[in-house]
This record gives sequence, C-alpha cells and structure tokens, in this order.
Amino acid sequence: MNEAVLARAKKIKLVIFDVDGVMTDGGLGIGDDGQEYKFFHSLDGFGMKLLKQSGVEMAIITGRTSNVVVKRAENTGVFNFYQGVENKLEAFNDLIQKMNLSPEEVAFMGDDIVDAPPMLRCGLALTVPTGHRLIKPVAHYVTQAPAGHGALREVCELIMQAQGTFDAVIAPYFKLP
Amino acid sequence: MNEAVLARAKKIKLVIFDVDGVMTDGGLGIGDDGQEYKFFHSLDGFGMKLLKQSGVEMAIITGRTSNVVVKRAENTGVFNFYQGVENKLEAFNDLIQKMNLSPEEVAFMGDDIVDAPPMLRCGLALTVPTGHRLIKPVAHYVTQAPAGHGALREVCELIMQAQGTFDAVIAPYFKLP
Amino acid sequence: MNEAVLARAKKIKLVIFDVDGVMTDGGLGIGDDGQEYKFFHSLDGFGMKLLKQSGVEMAIITGRTSNVVVKRAENTGVFNFYQGVENKLEAFNDLIQKMNLSPEEVAFMGDDIVDAPPMLRCGLALTVPTGHRLIKPVAHYVTQAPAGHGALREVCELIMQAQGTFDAVIAPYFKLP
Amino acid sequence: MNEAVLARAKKIKLVIFDVDGVMTDGGLGIGDDGQEYKFFHSLDGFGMKLLKQSGVEMAIITGRTSNVVVKRAENTGVFNFYQGVENKLEAFNDLIQKMNLSPEEVAFMGDDIVDAPPMLRCGLALTVPTGHRLIKPVAHYVTQAPAGHGALREVCELIMQAQGTFDAVIAPYFKLP
Repeated sequence: MNEAVLARAKKIKLVIFDVDGVMTDGGLGIGDDGQEYKFFHSLDGFGMKLLKQSGVEMAIITGRTSNVVVKRAENTGVFNFYQGVENKLEAFNDLIQKMNLSPEEVAFMGDDIVDAPPMLRCGLALTVPTGHRLIKPVAHYVTQAPAGHGALREVCELIMQAQGTFDAVIAPYFKLP
Repeated sequence: MNEAVLARAKKIKLVIFDVDGVMTDGGLGIGDDGQEYKFFHSLDGFGMKLLKQSGVEMAIITGRTSNVVVKRAENTGVFNFYQGVENKLEAFNDLIQKMNLSPEEVAFMGDDIVDAPPMLRCGLALTVPTGHRLIKPVAHYVTQAPAGHGALREVCELIMQAQGTFDAVIAPYFKLP
Repeated sequence: MNEAVLARAKKIKLVIFDVDGVMTDGGLGIGDDGQEYKFFHSLDGFGMKLLKQSGVEMAIITGRTSNVVVKRAENTGVFNFYQGVENKLEAFNDLIQKMNLSPEEVAFMGDDIVDAPPMLRCGLALTVPTGHRLIKPVAHYVTQAPAGHGALREVCELIMQAQGTFDAVIAPYFKLP
Repeated sequence: MNEAVLARAKKIKLVIFDVDGVMTDGGLGIGDDGQEYKFFHSLDGFGMKLLKQSGVEMAIITGRTSNVVVKRAENTGVFNFYQGVENKLEAFNDLIQKMNLSPEEVAFMGDDIVDAPPMLRCGLALTVPTGHRLIKPVAHYVTQAPAGHGALREVCELIMQAQGTFDAVIAPYFKLP
C-alpha cells in the first residue's frame, strides 16, 4: 500500500461498487425459468457493515438490472443504487450531486471498461485481480483478494485504516468482557 | 497471437459458440425439481455486446436443450441459436447458407469432440484451456482465459483487433466529456 | 497408465459411480425453501454417452437421496441407480447379481470411506484427486482430472481405450462427409 | 499437528461451527425472487456424521439467518443452532451452560473477527485457510483443507484421532464381511 493511495482513501465519504465482477466473481447464474442468480461473499458483507459503522456511505451503480442486487443492498447497508445504467458517469455525477460530495470524496470500484469514466473522475479508483487489462492502469489500487471472495473486504479495511477508524470498529471483538 | 490467426480472424462475419464448456465452465446445475442452471460471466457478456456493435454476428449451436440458453441469447444479442443438435456440422451448414456466408467468414468455438466437424470446416476454430485433448489440435487458437471466465471476451477482442474495430468500440469509455 | 489397470479395465461391463464428490465436486447446494442442487459437468456427461454407446453399462449407488440424481441419470443413459444406501456393498452385490455379472466385470468409482467395501470387492476401483486419504490406497487408479470437472470422462475413455472401442466411437467426429 | 492441539482436542465434547466461510466457502447465493443459497460439501457432512457417532455433539452459531442452515443441521445431526446472533459469546455461554459444559470441553470454528470472542474463550479454537488475518492468531489450529471443501472433515477427524475413537468409527468400512 503506498502513501498516495492512503492519502486518497483518507478523504473518502462514499464508496460506489459495480456489482458483477466486483461484488461477485462475475458469474451470472440462469435457471430454466429465466430466474437469475449471483454469488456474494460473507467476508465482503461483513466488511461493508463495518465500513458503514465507521461512517462511510456505500452505493451501487450497475449496468445490469436484477432483484438480486436490491436484496444484497438491503442485507449490507447500501441505500443508494442505480441499476440498468447505460452511462455510469451520469449516474456517478447524479449521485454525488444528490449527496453534496466532491469527486475526491468518492471511491469507485469497477472491473470492466464501462467503469472507466467514473474511475477516471473519482478520488479513489479501485479494481480487482480479474479486472480488464485496460482498467487496471486506470485504478489507483488493485486488490490482492479476488472479486467475490474478499476484494470488497480489503477495500473496506483499506479505507478504515487510512481514516484511522479500523481499530475502534474491531476493538469490541478482541476484548473479553 | 500469430499472424495466421489474425489473418483468419480478419475475415470473420459470424462467430458460433458452443454453450457448455465454452460460454460456461461446463458446470450443469440441477435442482430437486428438475430445473437446470448454468453460470455465464459478465466479462464475456460485455465482450459479446462490443463484438455485435462492431458489426460481427453471433450464433449458438449446442447439443443440449435448455431455456437457459434462450435467456442468455436474449441478454447478449445472439439472434440465431440451434439447440438439441445431434449433428453440429448440419446446423453449421444450414446457418451459413441461411446467412449467405462462406465457411471462411465463420468462426466456431467448441470444447469437445462433438464440435470437431464444424471446427474442421470453419475459417477460425477456437477452443478453451479445458477443451478436450483431441480438440486442441483442431483449433487455430486456444484462449488463455478459462471457459466461462473470460474466454469469450478474449475471442471477441481478438476478432475486433484483427478487424481494426476495437479502438473505435472502446474509445467512448476512455475520454471524459 | 500401467498395464495392470488396463488389464482390469478390459474386463469391465458395468461402471458404478458414487455421486457426491465423484460426479460432482462434492458441493451440496441448499436453498431457503429446502431444495437441493448439484453441479455436474458437460465433459463427463458426454463421456458417459460415449461409454454407453461402446457397450458398457453404468449405474449409480449413493448414500444420499435426491431427485437431482434421477434427473442426471435420465440425461446420461444410466438406468440403474440406488439412492439412500446405508450399505454400499449390499447394493453392489444386489446389482451385479441382478445383472448376472462377476465382481471382476464391474468398476466402482468413489471418494469417501463409505465407498471402501465395494471398491475392495470390484474389479476396478477408481477415485479422484480429492478422494479421502484412506480411499486412495484402495483405488487401482486415481484420475488426473478433478471430480465434477472431467474425472468421469477420464474414466470412460480409459475403459474404452483398454477395450479397443474408443477409436470407433469417436471416428465419426473426425472425418468430414 | 502439535501435541498441544491434540491435548486440547482430547477434552472436546461439543464442537460449535460458524456457517458462512466455515461450513461453506463464504459464498452467498441470491436469486431474483430473493431466495438464498449456500453450498456445503459431502466430505464435511460425512465427517460430521462420524464425529456424532463417536459421541461428540455439534452446534451452529451464526450471525445470519437462513432456512438453509436449518436444513443442513437436520441433514448432519446438529441439534443445537443459534441464528441471527449479534453477540456470539453470549450464545456460546448460553449453550455451554444449557449443556452443562466447561469452556475447555468446547471447540469453536470461525473465520471472521465476529468469531473472536468465543474463539478466545473456548478450549479449542479453529479456523480455515481463508480465515481473516486477525483471526488466524486467535486459532489454535488452521485447517489445511479449504472452507466448504473438507475443512470440517479435517476438524472432525482431528478430534476423533485425539480421542482415540477414529479407528473404531471407520473400521466397519475397511473389513469385508
């Protein structure tokens, strides 16, 4: 972790996640009846709860549309989400204006070239080891943990550590009553 | 990537995909109620959209029959598909005649020996790292990315790069307004 | 492949498969509504069709009970299956008597210690790379391909090659009309 | 396996498992209709049956709530489970009091920081290779097998071997009638 990344992470008040290939490993399950399925990860979900608890907001901007995302958002404390988005930069701009944030206060985590515009605009651009080869140069940080298996957790902890909130958030779990 | 592969890719107007083991990792999910499930990948789906946008058509020829394939075809811009096919070469010949194409203008991506006949006939034969050992010698190109996790994306970009359309297709994502 | 294994494989008229951890990678999916899911593999399914076509019968003996197995058996040409089996050797003995076979004419593929009794009795005992450490010494052959991702295909081809039927079975796919 | 771990394992009368990331690989499947899915493993399930047969009880304490866990508990001989638990130490204390056990007689297997309090209190603290970096130092033993793919089986056999019950439990499978 270099200092420049930590300096960027220190200012973040909102983290925006792409879904497929970031919150999941990119797998899109389809059943005979047309129903869709996605697989998230428990480590990531708990990281999101801790990050929220530390005072950072989270949002989802995704190109696809699925009730799965609504359910996952409910389970993890994400209150803002944009689905079926053609132009992710427009959704990004709309959201930060609504929340009265500057781009430097926002992180964006994506994996494909459709995520490039908000990643080029935001304060902290994040991707995963399986991110597209043209997206990695756009990211300030590539996680070590794989997408859908800890990548979000790593990002949540990175931000909390940069902001000095991590120790307080986890302290209750490491002292016995 | 050698020159011979790029020369073949340059002529392609239609790419035909097998489903199981090519668009997926080969996994066939079955539920207690008999319903079937397959897992596709978001990187592959977006590659198919870009390839279509570049002017290349896509089709599916598969030996199994499943509503899952219909749904995935709808989601990714594939309009021609043949399911429950016993003889893939017949389906191949039928399709290229219908679309008025010569074999050199068609790529076929398969992973098992049932795919050999159209792969031996088409202009660009493609397979995946988990393709059957007897299929690999039949392929002009074996992807580096695994089946169901980027193999289709790699093929889509290979064809667009050979045809000089890739830069134009992705340009919108790399310039800010 | 050593000669002793091929000599054993040459005599096989029936192959009996365990399901979980052999036909699948051992994963047992459960949904909120209590429904169960298993994932099989397309390479394995096609191998089973080829083996059947070559004249070898297949059966399933499994300790669990699931409609999933019924469905997979229908899809792959397996007509004999025993589910919810406490004592696999009893089921093994019952089946070979019913089919009028001697133990040397039967192969059994398992992955856990509950599979040891029929594996110790049959003519060709097979397991997978993730088979239990106490089962591997009982097996005459451990597949190179993983369970649920080609292990069955490897076994099917091994038997057909030992019996000299493989080339004829695949020949139709490698000559153009 | 060092002697200290075996000495701890020898005293265990109850093993408590976390679910996500321990009994599963952490994957949380969600369908369009909001239904949830988890994947367990056949090797683990059979290990649990053997452990129970050897006289050791099992329980589940998990932070999430899902009918999936009820179903898996029924299938594997787990009669005590606590779901939707905010404070795992409270559930731990409640359970061992109810069962009249001392902490040294109880093992706890977890993967995330929310599992730290019972892991710091119990007699044998266990985790998996994908356990959180802050949980590994809290564990007396980290399994070699991955979560959801044999980690529970490894723990079940470790305890039976420490208690000298393993050979008797598996003996029936290794002698022919």
